This record gives sequence, structure tokens and C-alpha cells, in this order.
Amino acid sequence: MAGNTFGNIFKLTTFGESHGVAIGGIIDGCPPGLELDFEAIQHEMDRRKPGQSKIVTQRKEPDTVEFLSGIFDGKTTGTPIGFVIKNTNQKSKDYSHIKDVYRPSHADYTYEKKYGLRDYRGGGRSSARETASRVVAGAIAKQYLKSIQINAFTSSVGDIELTKPYQELDFSQTDTNDVRCPDIEIANLMIDKIKAIRKEGNTIGGTITCVIQNVPLGLGEPVFDKLHADLGKAMLSINAVKGFEYGSGFAGSKMTGTEHNDMFNQDGSTKTNMSGGIQGGISNGMDIYFKVAFKPVATVIQKQDALDNSGNIVEMQGKGRHDPCVVPRAIPIVEAMAALVIVDFYLLHKMYS
Amino acid sequence: MAGNTFGNIFKLTTFGESHGVAIGGIIDGCPPGLELDFEAIQHEMDRRKPGQSKIVTQRKEPDTVEFLSGIFDGKTTGTPIGFVIKNTNQKSKDYSHIKDVYRPSHADYTYEKKYGLRDYRGGGRSSARETASRVVAGAIAKQYLKSIQINAFTSSVGDIELTKPYQELDFSQTDTNDVRCPDIEIANLMIDKIKAIRKEGNTIGGTITCVIQNVPLGLGEPVFDKLHADLGKAMLSINAVKGFEYGSGFAGSKMTGTEHNDMFNQDGSTKTNMSGGIQGGISNGMDIYFKVAFKPVATVIQKQDALDNSGNIVEMQGKGRHDPCVVPRAIPIVEAMAALVIVDFYLLHKMYS
Amino acid sequence: MAGNTFGNIFKLTTFGESHGVAIGGIIDGCPPGLELDFEAIQHEMDRRKPGQSKIVTQRKEPDTVEFLSGIFDGKTTGTPIGFVIKNTNQKSKDYSHIKDVYRPSHADYTYEKKYGLRDYRGGGRSSARETASRVVAGAIAKQYLKSIQINAFTSSVGDIELTKPYQELDFSQTDTNDVRCPDIEIANLMIDKIKAIRKEGNTIGGTITCVIQNVPLGLGEPVFDKLHADLGKAMLSINAVKGFEYGSGFAGSKMTGTEHNDMFNQDGSTKTNMSGGIQGGISNGMDIYFKVAFKPVATVIQKQDALDNSGNIVEMQGKGRHDPCVVPRAIPIVEAMAALVIVDFYLLHKMYS
Amino acid sequence: MAGNTFGNIFKLTTFGESHGVAIGGIIDGCPPGLELDFEAIQHEMDRRKPGQSKIVTQRKEPDTVEFLSGIFDGKTTGTPIGFVIKNTNQKSKDYSHIKDVYRPSHADYTYEKKYGLRDYRGGGRSSARETASRVVAGAIAKQYLKSIQINAFTSSVGDIELTKPYQELDFSQTDTNDVRCPDIEIANLMIDKIKAIRKEGNTIGGTITCVIQNVPLGLGEPVFDKLHADLGKAMLSINAVKGFEYGSGFAGSKMTGTEHNDMFNQDGSTKTNMSGGIQGGISNGMDIYFKVAFKPVATVIQKQDALDNSGNIVEMQGKGRHDPCVVPRAIPIVEAMAALVIVDFYLLHKMYS
Repeated sequence: MAGNTFGNIFKLTTFGESHGVAIGGIIDGCPPGLELDFEAIQHEMDRRKPGQSKIVTQRKEPDTVEFLSGIFDGKTTGTPIGFVIKNTNQKSKDYSHIKDVYRPSHADYTYEKKYGLRDYRGGGRSSARETASRVVAGAIAKQYLKSIQINAFTSSVGDIELTKPYQELDFSQTDTNDVRCPDIEIANLMIDKIKAIRKEGNTIGGTITCVIQNVPLGLGEPVFDKLHADLGKAMLSINAVKGFEYGSGFAGSKMTGTEHNDMFNQDGSTKTNMSGGIQGGISNGMDIYFKVAFKPVATVIQKQDALDNSGNIVEMQGKGRHDPCVVPRAIPIVEAMAALVIVDFYLLHKMYS
Repeated sequence: MAGNTFGNIFKLTTFGESHGVAIGGIIDGCPPGLELDFEAIQHEMDRRKPGQSKIVTQRKEPDTVEFLSGIFDGKTTGTPIGFVIKNTNQKSKDYSHIKDVYRPSHADYTYEKKYGLRDYRGGGRSSARETASRVVAGAIAKQYLKSIQINAFTSSVGDIELTKPYQELDFSQTDTNDVRCPDIEIANLMIDKIKAIRKEGNTIGGTITCVIQNVPLGLGEPVFDKLHADLGKAMLSINAVKGFEYGSGFAGSKMTGTEHNDMFNQDGSTKTNMSGGIQGGISNGMDIYFKVAFKPVATVIQKQDALDNSGNIVEMQGKGRHDPCVVPRAIPIVEAMAALVIVDFYLLHKMYS
Repeated sequence: MAGNTFGNIFKLTTFGESHGVAIGGIIDGCPPGLELDFEAIQHEMDRRKPGQSKIVTQRKEPDTVEFLSGIFDGKTTGTPIGFVIKNTNQKSKDYSHIKDVYRPSHADYTYEKKYGLRDYRGGGRSSARETASRVVAGAIAKQYLKSIQINAFTSSVGDIELTKPYQELDFSQTDTNDVRCPDIEIANLMIDKIKAIRKEGNTIGGTITCVIQNVPLGLGEPVFDKLHADLGKAMLSINAVKGFEYGSGFAGSKMTGTEHNDMFNQDGSTKTNMSGGIQGGISNGMDIYFKVAFKPVATVIQKQDALDNSGNIVEMQGKGRHDPCVVPRAIPIVEAMAALVIVDFYLLHKMYS
Repeated sequence: MAGNTFGNIFKLTTFGESHGVAIGGIIDGCPPGLELDFEAIQHEMDRRKPGQSKIVTQRKEPDTVEFLSGIFDGKTTGTPIGFVIKNTNQKSKDYSHIKDVYRPSHADYTYEKKYGLRDYRGGGRSSARETASRVVAGAIAKQYLKSIQINAFTSSVGDIELTKPYQELDFSQTDTNDVRCPDIEIANLMIDKIKAIRKEGNTIGGTITCVIQNVPLGLGEPVFDKLHADLGKAMLSINAVKGFEYGSGFAGSKMTGTEHNDMFNQDGSTKTNMSGGIQGGISNGMDIYFKVAFKPVATVIQKQDALDNSGNIVEMQGKGRHDPCVVPRAIPIVEAMAALVIVDFYLLHKMYS
């Protein structure tokens, strides 16, 4: 039950440490006969990769996916899709300074205590580098779910928030700016914020909102595998995530029943959508939307106390190239995980037809 | 992959509709040799049952658990524990008024569209009555996890919030009042609020905070089955839940790295606990705490528009005995689901030792 | 991972000991809208129940199924089907003679050593009584798989073998005799054999052959979940089973390639069927057939040495009403498990369409 | 639920087609801190690889494993172990002659009908080349199970059988001859048989017996996941396997209870071992032994009729380098799958301690 597999029908199992030879994964259960658009897959990888803009880590890693199986003449065959992404950036660096040290609010301490040893180079398995494999699988899932739109965007950086309802946004603007906020004015404020934070050698949290449109009615498997429960788990499994809410979310807890109930139209759609497109754990055909909270990256370029493995508090200084805010690069990860949840329930639901 | 099983090692599968003969479940994977305290199990059932106080539904249902297997001479045997809870309240009632009608913000519409038919009596499978089975399993899990404390409490009702840090609360006060808030002053405000709402025939949302103490280091299975990801899924699978956050949660997304990082003490504990007891998806030995948002109950005792199965908007009037606020009765459910997550990871982690 | 669940999509979880209050189970994932024939279900139960003929145990147990959920207006609803079968025969008996004693070739010793304690009454969980729950689920699976025929029959008792190819048999004759062999002449020899063995207070093994016809092409999920691999596991999970072979089976290991290869007809069917309807783990549309070996029942009505829990060899005498040969009553169990395997792969395969 | 994962705790997922870039897999759940002996792993690979002796296929493929993750400083880290084995032999060959043709008793037809397309080169996913990945995982499992001995050997080729009880064999002799039969005299007969068969351009089936010694009492999870049921599934998932029996097996079905019952010694061991080391689905500490039947390889170097995808019967001639008998190279595969079953139940059983 080691937890490196996601999904039940369309299953992704990932492997790899940030500074090993390669990361990668196996997608098992992808329907056969899907003609893959490899450029579209690589495009998603590029949205996640380091070094893509001035407000993310300046580390350079091309993140090229190499497919090893499960594809023939450009189409999926129904057999497992194995893939690897070489770690090109892992070579000569010296990690002796963190070998015996647990950085605060990283996973160094818990990994070492749980497993008895750890690959300390660059965070090892706990590094967000692993999410590159998720983006590969999510990109394929998206291609299978052609008629469904999944759009994530940055909805806050620190206390700079995009408060407009998503219906007023133009998602085609999301990728036009480095922070991936579809409202350009707010985007610029966010970018300035991140630059200022970076200058301090500090980091900042943020939130991502994701909207899934054109989802067929009927996805989700109550009582435990409610659609939003699996979306929640998917998002909370992403590095640095601290919270998840869908539909009315936490604000809904302050409302009354008469305020919150979504009245029906005659076609079964609803006038409001506090439900966030999900009722009783099952999609109702309305837009699904949810918000994900990310904490600030733990690595700051300042002196901080850390613990060494002899029980001493030692001073350490984060160095190197780190993201001042994880949110812009997490957009494709959120979309990928959303796609993996949706494709899994979509395939499962085909059995009822 | 129908979603009626929770857990991987200590597994609960539930069955039952609110107005069928009985609900119940099977617990598979409970370790053998555990001497059960049946009164403690029934006590948890009583905390959840209807009719227990003035601010919950006045429906009466004793919710007595009958165990059918897996226990011998008062001890678990390692074989599956089957149990049933008779539905004593389901008899003669007339449900013809909702037979052809989909109530707003209930699961009537999605269940009927997904499955092609539904047991419309009292919500059927989508009723929160199902959670009684979870409380049984959770109560057994708690007994296995003797040294771990799981305490949930009402942290808000509508906009009345308990803002004190949990460290200043006395959890022994939680059950001394009907709303299950350990701060008596705030509890009284909440109770008044619920009474006022009920008088209007309306309902109100709220939040529950849960604190898990004395959790051993090492629980959680990254990368997908992070401890907080499974806690999130568990909570989001409870009826009416709209959001989940742990540790610093959504507030953490507004913070900087230097504010948010938890500095170590020499023994590996941390001076602050923004991490909420979990780093990299693995418990670090500090308190785990999280907050769960509940929407207002959809059934209001007022006239509302509904949709019938011929596509007409019809007026309907909620009647009967419903909870004006779901939160007080959801406390034992939150604790039960937390216990199920913890026991599962606890058993799994034994394999590494 | 306690092993009381079978299947991935159409899942059966069972509970219950032979002398507890009841046995039963939960079927999760049964497609909705299936109109159930309850008499047909009970008919399968009656084929398995004790006391049905002179060559099986004379214990009387009506084995009436009571459904608790998942069915509404006679149809499955897509929600879990909970059911119980009361143990009516368990009451007053005295089991003190086996309390501290491990009977040879029973599971007494291994259960007690594995779990640290055991319900010693009548074999507890290890009793074949558990298989009654499998017959319930299998009967429902059969109803879903209307167009597929599953016919098991006794193909040997001791050294009396039915050697005719199954194509020459009339399956409608199987249930016309007590031993369930469709060749009446052989059936009578088998019955005589069982009667003679019973007179000696001894027991005898046998084999069951099962033929599944009209299976659509495409069932099975290589590489690990090959159709015959799951059929094998299903059969080997039945009490007293020692072997499984399909198609040419063990005899196939003595053949050459040119003898064994099944030549195609133009429609994709094959002239011979050494493959047993399965190639590469996937059904090819031809008849699936396999054979299952059952050991003799361990309880003999003779004096035998046993081990007590203080490490002494003690003499014990089997008593009561036991089956001299397990095979006649195992026919519906073999069919039920075959149906569970087929329905699971059938539903899974719908996802590719 | 695509079936490319084996195991629940120690899980292997494999990918790869015989003539793609590479095959490989991910082992998830391997306990941390295991110091790996890489030579021992490669040694197992060499026992399976083509071209190792005169009686197996003369194809040359070095089958070198490359580990990509999950290992640090020579030890497992508890994170997933990704590995690849390059297909060095796949390059220039021309497969156009089988592109549109379904070979008899191969998986060509069923794969194409199930998935709608297939990688026809060398059998694609249905090729036994996939089992190389199983051998990698099995070799690691064996290293974890240091104190348990798993010994498989050829027990028959066609009608040449090794009839001696395994207790009289010296397993150290198994690998001293090309057919892997520990009785040299019989081995020579088998080798002669295979050579004669190969000269005819034909193939021959055989059986493998496997003995697992020093297994701790308590492995296996009844009622469905009985130890022998999972062993059976594991073996039946290997290419070309047609049958499985353990302990007394099919012969046991001809015996009486008094003949078959294993009498206890005072230490809980038994005087005989018809049970094959498993009672009630749980290991009892005695030797586990089982036999596996393999059909003759379907590819013969003779003219045979095949079916093309236009529905014509066409003549084809197998060519190239194929195994005249699969059994000698299947020995390490049987051992690997046995190790995977045992390690999974072993880890699971640790939870009870």
C-alpha cells in the first residue's frame, strides 16, 4: 500500500527522486486507440518546468518525456504506458551540507525517521520534481477527455486576490503572463509581489482556482469516493497544499439553507451553483470549481536554524535556485490531477451505460 | 470500484438506505485480540443519534448496533466484523410527495440520473444515516489506538466563531453542551443562533476542528497517500462537507516562508506547528489539527421550488424533523473518520518495523 | 488487505462464522436496474444447503437470504446490497471437546497461531458455511450475465471418472441426481461410492468440471489479471480445493506444439479448443472449461489423533453430520465463483467500448 | 483495473512490449534499508535470458537491469524502485509477415479484438519477454526473505517425469544442467527429448515443481486471499501455464480422508504433508510445494494455417529462434512469482505482530 499509485481504472504509478538518474511512471488503464498529440504533452511539461520565466526558479531542466511502451503507430494500445524523464540537472552538485541536516518545514526529518534513511539530494522523493510525471499522465487524460475543459489559474498570491467570479474571466489570458492569472491587472500586482518577496530572499504562498466545464452528469462513486472527495485528495497530494474547498467552500459554512440551496431550472441545471457542480458526491452537469491553498516554499535564501542528526540546532543558509512562489508552476499540476480524477470516474461510469 | 469501502488495511464497507430494513457494514482487517468495550461503542452512537438534544432533529432512533461476527468471548478474532443497525423509524411514512420530485441541493437528481432509479424514501443511500456505520467502525479503531487522542469540536456556527487556539481549550468541556463547543460562552451563542435559525424554519452551516494528539512519527504514505490527503478525502466524504484545511490551511497561503517555517527543537519537535503535525505527507509527532466546513442542511421548513421528473418546477415544503445545523451531530463522525485514517496508516506503518 | 473481498468492480465482501448469529455479505458495484429473481437466488442456495439429499450432511439449515439494502421495487439500485443468512443450527451444541484441540488437516491450528485466538465452534470462519454468501452473490451475477451459461458438474469421485468430453453431455441432467453428474450411469457409480465411503465413516475427494459458454471475446486483463488466473484464484479460494487446470491443463504439458495448437476457422473460432477459450489471458469466444480438484473432507467418523494446545497428542472421534464427499454441494459454489469472475471482467471490459 | 500490477503491499507494476524501446517496472512497497546484491539480481536475469544454453532460443539479449530510483548508497529507501531493461534485439527485423496475421494459439487475435489494435512485433505485450521484469522484482523479494528458500525445478518434459519425492533431491544440482532438473539421469533424458523435438521443428510442454521452505506459520489471508489461491493466480499469470496444484493436488481428489489427513507431531509439525504446507489458506510452517503445467510453445518451425485480418486462412511458417520447450527458462520466473506472493503476505502478516 505504499502510496505511489493514483487512480483505480486509469492508474498512474510514479517513481523517481529529484537527483537520481530519472523520474517517470507507468500509466495503466489508458483506453486503447487514443491518438496522442505529443506536442501537447510536451507543452504541459513546459508549463511546469523550471526556468520558464523570471518569477520561478532559474534552474534549467528541459523535462523531455521519453515514452517506452504502450504506444504503437502514435496510438495507445491499451497496454501500460511506461515513460521516463531524465534528470539532466543532477550531476556534480555537492549536497554534503544537508546530508546530516533536517531543514525546517521540509520532509527531511520525517522521511529519515520513517524510512531509516533518505536520499538527501535536493529533497529526493519529497521534491516536487515528482509532479512532472503527473503532468505527463494528466496531459494524456486531457486528450482522452477532449470535450471537457479544465482550467486552473492563480487566484491569489499572499494577500493579493482575484475576487472576480470565474465566469467573468477569460481563461485564454491565463498563460499570457508569468503568474498565470487571467486578470492582467491583478496578475501584474502578483508578479510585483513575487519579485519583491524574492528580493528579500523570502517566499510567499497563494491559491489556485480550478474550473472544470462540460463534465457529464453522473461522475463520482458515493459514499466514500464522492467526486469532490477524490478531487480533494488529489489536490492535497500535491506538494505544499494546505487546503481544499469546492463550490461555496468555507464561505458556505456561514450561510443559511435558503441562501445556499441551488434552485433548479427546468432542464435540471441550477440557477446558482453553490454545489460546485457536485451533489451527493456525483457531478450534476454544472461547472465544477474548487480552490487549493499552497503554503510558502520552505526554502528561503536567508539564514535559518535547522536540526542536525546528532540533535544540534545548526544555522543554515538556503542557496541555489528556488521558487519564490510555487503557484505559477503548480497550475499545470492542479489541472493534471483534476484530469486524472475525472478520467477515472469517467471510465468507471461507462460501466453503467 | 463502487465507492462503499474506506481504508486499505483496516477496511470499512457500509451498506444501507435510510428507510430500508437496516444499515450496517463489515470491518475487515481489524487486528485480532482486541477486547472491545461495547458501551464505549454505543456511547459514540449516542453522540451521533437523532433526538439527543433540543438543537438537533427530534426524530427518535435508538441506533443500537448488533454485531454478527468477528468477535468471540468479547475479543476481535481477526475475521471480518459484520454489524447491523436496524432502521426502527422507517415504517409507515408516506414518501409519495418526493417520489417524483428532486429537492434542491439534495442528491435526488444526481442519484436518479446516475443510476436510473433511486430509493427516494428519506434520501435513501445519500442520507447521512449511513454515517452511523462509520461511527461504529471509528469507535473500534479508537479502542485500538488507545494512546492516541482524537478530539473534534464545533469551531463555528454561521459567523459565530471560536477563535481561541485549541491549546487553550479544555476538550472535556466539549460534550457538556448541546452544540459541542468546548468554550461555554461561545457555545451558548452558537446554541442561540441555531435556535433562532430553527425558528425561521431555516438551517445554518458551520465548521468542526479536529485535533489528533500523540500520533507516532511516520504515518502517511507519500506521494499520493499523504496523511493529510487521506484525512482530507475522509472528511470530504462526509455528507455536507465543502472544505478541508490542515495546519495553517488557507491562512497559510497568505504567509511568507520565514513566517510559516516551523523551527526545530533539539528533540525534533517544533516551536510552532504551521505544518499541522505533517511534513511531506508524514506525521512528525506534533499535534495534527484540521478544520472541516459544513454547508447548511438543504432541507428547510419553508416553501421552495423543486423540479419534478417531468421537467416541471413545483413548489414543495420541507416537513418533518430535520437538523437546523448538522455540526453538533457530525462531531463523532469527524472523529470516527479521523480514527479510520489513522488506524489504517498505523497498521501499514507496522510493516516497516 | 484482510482477504474477505472478492472482485474489483462487482465486489463481494463476506462475513460470518459457522456458529455465530449470522453470516452474510455486501455486494458493491452491482449495476443498477437489474430486476432480481429472488426464487432463482434461493434455488441456488438450496443447491448448496445441507440436508438436501442422502449423500450429503444430514444437518438441516434452511439458508434463507434476507436482503437489507440496495434493492428497491425489486430492482437493484446501484447501491451496496447487504444481506444476511441466519445461522439457525448453531444454538445449544457443545464444542468443549474441540476447544483446546486442533483437528488434523483442519484450519484449527493455523487460525489459532495466526490470530492468537479462534472461534472454535464448528470451524468458525474456516467453515465452508461462508460459501453460502458467495452463492448469493454468484446468483445475482448470473442474472446479470443472462446470455452466458455457466454449468458445473461432478466429473469424478475418488477414482470414478466421467471421461466423456463435455460436448457429449446434457447439462440439464446434472441436477437430476444427488451427486450432480450429468451422465446417469456414472452418477450411480459415484453415489454408490459415496454411500460405501460414508458407511466406513470415511470421506472421499473428487473433481468438478465447469463449462462457461457464450462468453464474449475480450474478457481478461493481462498481464497479471489473465482471465484464467483469476478463475484459478477464485476456485482455489473455495474450501478443500487442491488444484485447478483449464483447457488442455496438465495433459497439455505432455503434448507437442503441433498437437496442441488450435487451428482457426475463418470466423475466428477454432477447430480444436486446447486453449480452453482463453488465449493470452483473454477470452476468445470459444467455450471456457476448467477442472477443480477437491480433497476428501478432513472430518472422518473414526478415531484419529489430534493435537491439543498443551502439545499433547490426544485421540478424538469426529461426530455429527458431515459430508462424506464435498463435491455435490460444491457445484453451485464453483458456478458462483465463476460468475463472479466473469461479471467482474465483463463490467471492466465495458469501459473499452 | 488494467492488470499490470501484482501484489498489495510489495507491488510490482510492469510495462513494455517485446520489441519496443525497453521493458521495465516499478516496485512499490519494498521495505527500506535492504542492502541489495546487484550481482544476485543479474544472476537471476541470466537464468531467464535467451541464448544461455543449447536447448533454449538462440536469440541473444543481455537483459541488463538499470535501476532508476528507490536505491541510495546501495540500499532501498522505501520509495518506488523504477527500473528498465533495454530491448537490444528489437531493431531492424521485418514483422510485416505477421502484421495482418493471427498465429494459432497465440494472443494475436484476442489482443487485436480486445484493444482494436496491437503491437504485432514479436508478440508485443503478450510476449514472455515481460517476465524479465518479474524476475527483477522476485530477485529483490528473495533478498528480503533471506531465511526462506524457494527452489523450482523441471519435473517433467513431455512424458519424461521426475517421480522421486522432492525430499530426495539435491536442489544444488538444478542449475548444473541445461534443463534444470536436479536428477541428472532424468535431466539427460529431458535434454535429449528437447533436442529431438527441436530437430522436428516442434515444441513440447512440461511441468515445474516449486518447493518453498522455512516459511513462517501464519501467511495467507482467508477467505479469498488464501496463500495457495494467490500462489495459483501468480503461476497462472505466467505465459503458457495451464494448471496449478499444491500439496496432494489432483491426486488428492482420489484419496480418502484417512489417507489424506496429516497427523500432528507434538511440535505442531505434521507426519505427512498432503496439505502442502497450507491449511485453511494459511501456512503451517511445513514445506510448501506445488506443481505448474506449461503447454508447448505455440511457435513451431513448420508450416501451419493462420488467420489473416480479412478472414482468410493463410499458410505461415514460424521462423527464427524460439524455445523448443519453455520450462528451463521458466524456472526463475516461477521462483520470482513465488517470492512475490510470499513477500506480500509476509509484510502483511507483520501487522499482526
